[in-house]
Amino acid sequence: MVGLLFSGLALFISTAASSAVLVRRDNNSTAWQDKSLPAAIRADSLLPQLSWEEKIAQMGGIRQLLGPNVTFNQTTWDNLYPLQHGILSYGSQLNQAQDVLPYANRVREQQLNDSQVPWITVTDSVNSIYVPGGTVFPATLSLSTTWDLDLYGEVVAAIREENMALGTHWVLSPELDVAKDPRYGEDVYLIGEFAAQYVRTMQERDENGYIKVGTTIKHFMYGQGVGGVNTASMDGGVNHLYNDLAIPYIRVIKENPTALMVSYSSVDRVPMSMNTKLIQGMLRSELGFQGLIMSDAMGILHLDTQSLVASSLEDAALRALRAGLQLELAPGQPACFPSLVNSSDDAEVIRLVDEAVRQNLIVKFETGTFDLPLPTLENLNQTLRAAEHLDVNRRASREAIVLLSNNDGFLPQSNLSKVALVGPFGDLLDPGSYAPSTSSNPLHGRTLKQSLEAALGSENVEYVAGVEIYSTTTGPNDTSGIQAAVAAAKRAGIAIASLGSLSVYSQDSNVGQRTDGEFYSHADLGFPGDQQALLDAVLDAGVPTVLVLNGGQAFILDNSTVTRTKAILHEFLAGEFTADSLVEILTGKVNPSGKMTITMPQANGAFPIYYDYLPSDHEGGSGSYPSGSGGCGQGDWTFPCLERNGAPMAFGYGLSYTTFDISSPQITKATNATNTTTSSGDGDGTGVITISCTVTNTGSVAGKEVVQAYYRQQSSSDIELPNKRLIRFEKVDLQPGQSRQVNFTVDKMELGYYNDAKYQVDSGNYTFWVGSSSKLVDLKNATISL
Amino acid sequence: MVGLLFSGLALFISTAASSAVLVRRDNNSTAWQDKSLPAAIRADSLLPQLSWEEKIAQMGGIRQLLGPNVTFNQTTWDNLYPLQHGILSYGSQLNQAQDVLPYANRVREQQLNDSQVPWITVTDSVNSIYVPGGTVFPATLSLSTTWDLDLYGEVVAAIREENMALGTHWVLSPELDVAKDPRYGEDVYLIGEFAAQYVRTMQERDENGYIKVGTTIKHFMYGQGVGGVNTASMDGGVNHLYNDLAIPYIRVIKENPTALMVSYSSVDRVPMSMNTKLIQGMLRSELGFQGLIMSDAMGILHLDTQSLVASSLEDAALRALRAGLQLELAPGQPACFPSLVNSSDDAEVIRLVDEAVRQNLIVKFETGTFDLPLPTLENLNQTLRAAEHLDVNRRASREAIVLLSNNDGFLPQSNLSKVALVGPFGDLLDPGSYAPSTSSNPLHGRTLKQSLEAALGSENVEYVAGVEIYSTTTGPNDTSGIQAAVAAAKRAGIAIASLGSLSVYSQDSNVGQRTDGEFYSHADLGFPGDQQALLDAVLDAGVPTVLVLNGGQAFILDNSTVTRTKAILHEFLAGEFTADSLVEILTGKVNPSGKMTITMPQANGAFPIYYDYLPSDHEGGSGSYPSGSGGCGQGDWTFPCLERNGAPMAFGYGLSYTTFDISSPQITKATNATNTTTSSGDGDGTGVITISCTVTNTGSVAGKEVVQAYYRQQSSSDIELPNKRLIRFEKVDLQPGQSRQVNFTVDKMELGYYNDAKYQVDSGNYTFWVGSSSKLVDLKNATISL
Repeated sequence: MVGLLFSGLALFISTAASSAVLVRRDNNSTAWQDKSLPAAIRADSLLPQLSWEEKIAQMGGIRQLLGPNVTFNQTTWDNLYPLQHGILSYGSQLNQAQDVLPYANRVREQQLNDSQVPWITVTDSVNSIYVPGGTVFPATLSLSTTWDLDLYGEVVAAIREENMALGTHWVLSPELDVAKDPRYGEDVYLIGEFAAQYVRTMQERDENGYIKVGTTIKHFMYGQGVGGVNTASMDGGVNHLYNDLAIPYIRVIKENPTALMVSYSSVDRVPMSMNTKLIQGMLRSELGFQGLIMSDAMGILHLDTQSLVASSLEDAALRALRAGLQLELAPGQPACFPSLVNSSDDAEVIRLVDEAVRQNLIVKFETGTFDLPLPTLENLNQTLRAAEHLDVNRRASREAIVLLSNNDGFLPQSNLSKVALVGPFGDLLDPGSYAPSTSSNPLHGRTLKQSLEAALGSENVEYVAGVEIYSTTTGPNDTSGIQAAVAAAKRAGIAIASLGSLSVYSQDSNVGQRTDGEFYSHADLGFPGDQQALLDAVLDAGVPTVLVLNGGQAFILDNSTVTRTKAILHEFLAGEFTADSLVEILTGKVNPSGKMTITMPQANGAFPIYYDYLPSDHEGGSGSYPSGSGGCGQGDWTFPCLERNGAPMAFGYGLSYTTFDISSPQITKATNATNTTTSSGDGDGTGVITISCTVTNTGSVAGKEVVQAYYRQQSSSDIELPNKRLIRFEKVDLQPGQSRQVNFTVDKMELGYYNDAKYQVDSGNYTFWVGSSSKLVDLKNATISL
Repeated sequence: MVGLLFSGLALFISTAASSAVLVRRDNNSTAWQDKSLPAAIRADSLLPQLSWEEKIAQMGGIRQLLGPNVTFNQTTWDNLYPLQHGILSYGSQLNQAQDVLPYANRVREQQLNDSQVPWITVTDSVNSIYVPGGTVFPATLSLSTTWDLDLYGEVVAAIREENMALGTHWVLSPELDVAKDPRYGEDVYLIGEFAAQYVRTMQERDENGYIKVGTTIKHFMYGQGVGGVNTASMDGGVNHLYNDLAIPYIRVIKENPTALMVSYSSVDRVPMSMNTKLIQGMLRSELGFQGLIMSDAMGILHLDTQSLVASSLEDAALRALRAGLQLELAPGQPACFPSLVNSSDDAEVIRLVDEAVRQNLIVKFETGTFDLPLPTLENLNQTLRAAEHLDVNRRASREAIVLLSNNDGFLPQSNLSKVALVGPFGDLLDPGSYAPSTSSNPLHGRTLKQSLEAALGSENVEYVAGVEIYSTTTGPNDTSGIQAAVAAAKRAGIAIASLGSLSVYSQDSNVGQRTDGEFYSHADLGFPGDQQALLDAVLDAGVPTVLVLNGGQAFILDNSTVTRTKAILHEFLAGEFTADSLVEILTGKVNPSGKMTITMPQANGAFPIYYDYLPSDHEGGSGSYPSGSGGCGQGDWTFPCLERNGAPMAFGYGLSYTTFDISSPQITKATNATNTTTSSGDGDGTGVITISCTVTNTGSVAGKEVVQAYYRQQSSSDIELPNKRLIRFEKVDLQPGQSRQVNFTVDKMELGYYNDAKYQVDSGNYTFWVGSSSKLVDLKNATISL
């Protein structure tokens, strides 16, 4: 079979060559071959030597190198190759990395031998390499809950090395979406810092100056879609876009990311794939982005088929090209950019295609695609799942899990000897919908049932799922599963309820139970199916119960759940060591230190929700509508009720087995700005502020606290500003009784805002808070005049 | 007591006069006294004769003429009068109209005798005069569900006459808010047409050319606030604002409304009370509004106290003045505009104050405030609750109630003889939070219990509330009320469950049970409290049950509720004859003809929701997430799932006891535009299209059908356009077997859209649908090239 496929591969190359697509213009420049020259110079040298068809072909590619079971579809390949051969993806997520590499190498080798422009491999790489065989790290949102940028850098470096070993030098990450609809989280500063770390680490230069792995910041722009629907439109105005969604981009563009992907969304009614105003006006001109701009998968076609703004596939291609798109991602075909081949007499199209191809060539030169030797199977085997990668993965998983409540100090249960495990998530491991691992029989890692059995002995763990994730195959009135779970809980005397929402990838055996992930939107954030009924039944039986939340999202936790459970842990999607880490936390071997990076809503329908709401959004109610029935705590519903009783699950919140004291902040203003050499004062509006506080472990075990600093300009601004916003954070590891001073330095220029797309920094009073979460009860503050 | 108050009234006038506030400049022009001159000329004549303090005073007023029990607070009056005496409101909603009139007249009389600028009375007048004694009509949203503009005109004329009889010549209506968060409804065309009818009717000129009652269009601008919170901010961009929220304003401004009130909301982060861009750039320059611009109650102060953008009350006043506000509504005090009195040396402030005062004077001249005789108690008594007002009120109420489902043709129950009435809305009548009537002992009209008893005899109506609206005073586990309700239902063999959300005014005896109305936001749109449990218990008992929804909002109706109830009626807030009309409908004396003007969401959290969503918003899901658990019908959640099973409650939907057939539309294009005299063709982009169809009553009883026409430009637009939008509607009354042809004429210029604030009309294919609701299954279409 392999031999057959290789001959097929040879066939497609010869087919392509015989179609005369790749004939060069006569041009004598060989500068593009000079590895010592800058990428842009090499691109300028090569560009005139490419035929019109070759140029068009650079603006697209083929997603499916291989189908399932290492199969190769020659017909599809032949059809696509002539006008789509700039980029390549590995295809099916089912093929093992070691099986994929020889094919990828053969393609590259063949092209290099023919002196063609080589493919560059581009793949998703959210928390693993794209295909099985690598380390499965926590998902991005889960990694953000570590609040540890250094640890995150170690994770990204490991993912980078595993990608490079597979020959992948360009990935479709990081995500900068502000959640609202959760990816990294809801805070613009935190997203920016994590994504900057991703880009900085991935794009580290090798000893020859090549970018190790290029990155793609995305999805420009997306925040909360209307109605909570996946890919939905946004109504956002310019102040919202600049002060919310753009902030992470402004930060990460400083790291010179290779590429940027536009979102599926229509922003203020203009689909991003043709949004000239935001791509040219905002991204290129005002934010100064200089990398490549690409579509999301089928995003250009959607102009015709989903947004209904283009009259045809060809019209869609022209609209996208004119807006500034330079590379089309079209795994599902048909692609639109190949139709540009018919516009060879259109001067505007020729100019824009030349710009686009030049940008594609720069990426290939920058990443060594023309020059580097092919990766070897030997190195691949040494790199994938290297011991140090597994080590950092374990550390990340331990730090990511968030302890949301711990009534009566119920956890840790250091003497745990026997337990009932209930709920449909007890014997599966959700790797996330972009990870090549299965949930029911994980390629790597264990389910919670398996980890508990390893720790306590299988005879001491009784597992009863009780209910499925959502289906009711047993009929709505059959409660036998719930009854069995309650019986098991009573026998054990202690229960762990593992509930949530499943976001596995499309080839997972549990895909029929999927309720979350790409294409899966919830209108309602309660637990899918009968999971809440299962939990209530166990709690009604009076069995002490620890609730474990699974899934990359927020859930509705009603007051009864919060007060009657003994403890609540949210593990988001913490990678292959999720269950092992959870057992370590349950038994006290690991002290939890994760902090929420999203806010849990107080009621269904209380969306969007985020801690940095506008002050006037907290003013709509009259305070007399009681709890329950959509009310919020003690009063009626106002946005977002974060400071009231029963709302502990705010951004930045997370408990530990020890306690910490964080002192009131000391704020000092440097008389000489330390980061300028000539200035002798801050009278010109600049200046450096230092926010200092002392954090002390006041409990009896070692632990880590995330010290968080927030700020707000106090009054007299030209737009309404958030009630507060994160400006710095640091995770501090302290022994019992140990103290450490934390100093945050902030330039005044960071404290401004965009007013109608123009940045301004006002003079006046600024308040800074420091503490352990975004909630006012967890913060102490001081105000300074700047 | 009356004598004492009159002397108090005299005192405040003399106090004011003695403070020298009202001293005129020496100016000889008497043109302002000439009733034959245009209002603007008279204003220009009078303006220079006013002192600085008098000018400032014109820009504010006093809300509380009288407190509860016809009381008068002299101290407050004396404090406010000097710098706030342009407008007056009656004060407490508790005082009967006949008791209020003498006080209002005395104030006017005193001022006129002193040759001062008279007060003008400004009051809310949503569905009644502001104080008790008048006819209590259906609330605005409820009137919109009649889909009958002529009937609405009759209602507004009656409200106008009752206001004039009370001496009120300026009201704070109509609302143009697009709901999203419901007032009139979610459709921009319907809102525009109803509000235009309101303005046209209220502002009818009397025989002397005076505007009978001035109007105030509001709240500029508001749509869906973030998180569903009352008064919350909006993120909206310019295309959203122009193509959604501005459309009703563009329509109604053609009717020259007297005034406009800005909203509480921050739009794209700029509070409307200081939003120069939208007030000057959009409203004045682009939309051409020429009337007076006023704040909402305390809206200017909120710049300082809620939005935290102003540094002080004085700063707030200056920001509002500069943005274009000309009158401050400050019932709660402190007001901000009085602080402008200190800026008499600021040329910009002087210019803006002169403009504002001129605008206020024009309103007073236009409405005859300087010239008309005072209203008489005799005329008041003749006008309030006149027989023709009560008649139109009954007709409006009958046409407003919407029949949402009628399983097995259960209704009408023409032989209904005995019934159990359950639910907390069975023995109250919700007039709406802006109507001066009480819910438990209505001043006018009956509760459903009373209407049923009148129809069936009290011995045949067993009423058991079962639960309170939301409180659980009996404890969460006490189900005795529900058990009693179920027992009553079983005894009667048929049940009516009257459930909902209460929105009474602040002095209602049931105010403690209020869950809806101004200041009351729901995060969750399920029934408050234990009402759903009550309904489920009655349905579990197998008793045939009609569900009646009460309140000016949508509710979550789960599949079990829709399929197990025999019928569902939504009465919104249908005025004092709500219950009488409902009984007439239940028993078949009246055939229901109301149609939804909002869309009922399919799941909690599925907000915002509206039928005219963007096409791409329907594309986010993968179709395999089943019903329940936040899923939408047969598939997973996409926006807004309006065309799937189990989603009948869409905009435009409502059932009848007869059936109608509506033919496919015939579309013709006039070769000569009928509304132009010189044009001889439509080649220049204009032209008139006629959409014709035939509607036939195919059932056995007479009934009314609302024929609705929708349209969409098919492709190639510069922004994404709604999947369809209402363009015309007509309510047709037909005997069994009778047919009528309905012709809608539409100018092509109406079919355009705003692209970055510029209106454009594209050539190309346009599809028109006609039918009985916004759902595709209820529509037939044809396409024409324009």
